[in-house]
Amino acid sequence: MDENILGLVAGAFTSVAMLPQLIKVLKEKDVEDLSLLMMLFLITGLSLWVWYGVLKDELPIILSNAFAVVVNIILLSSYFIYRKK
Amino acid sequence: MDENILGLVAGAFTSVAMLPQLIKVLKEKDVEDLSLLMMLFLITGLSLWVWYGVLKDELPIILSNAFAVVVNIILLSSYFIYRKK
Repeated sequence: MDENILGLVAGAFTSVAMLPQLIKVLKEKDVEDLSLLMMLFLITGLSLWVWYGVLKDELPIILSNAFAVVVNIILLSSYFIYRKK
Repeated sequence: MDENILGLVAGAFTSVAMLPQLIKVLKEKDVEDLSLLMMLFLITGLSLWVWYGVLKDELPIILSNAFAVVVNIILLSSYFIYRKK
């Protein structure tokens, strides 16, 4: 199989797997299950993966990790908007 | 920066970010927050990423995704062991 197609399919699966969490938070405005530390680790790691993808010039790595960064930044923003004061 | 080191650091961050969920489930034996469908999507996507890493011969991709597959298989097993009958 062409490696780029394989990477894009893999990225589609791991991207779709993140959506239920995002939808739940946006719908219920409930961020109790989110861990701030975990989101910061994830955003750091995923951003480094984007950088890795750029250096290696691999589009599937760049796209799927950039998508994950966006999802986690929305989750992080929701955390600060909706957390109980 | 050497690309392999960058990839390994990125993988370390995204791997560590998965651990709180795993520890919580193993400690509290509470799998209510886990979504079966999401885990199946993740395991499928992560396994395809391992395959991608093997085809591209990229160790950071293989290691970090293989680790994530193992974590999610443990979560999946816990789901079936601990879910309320």
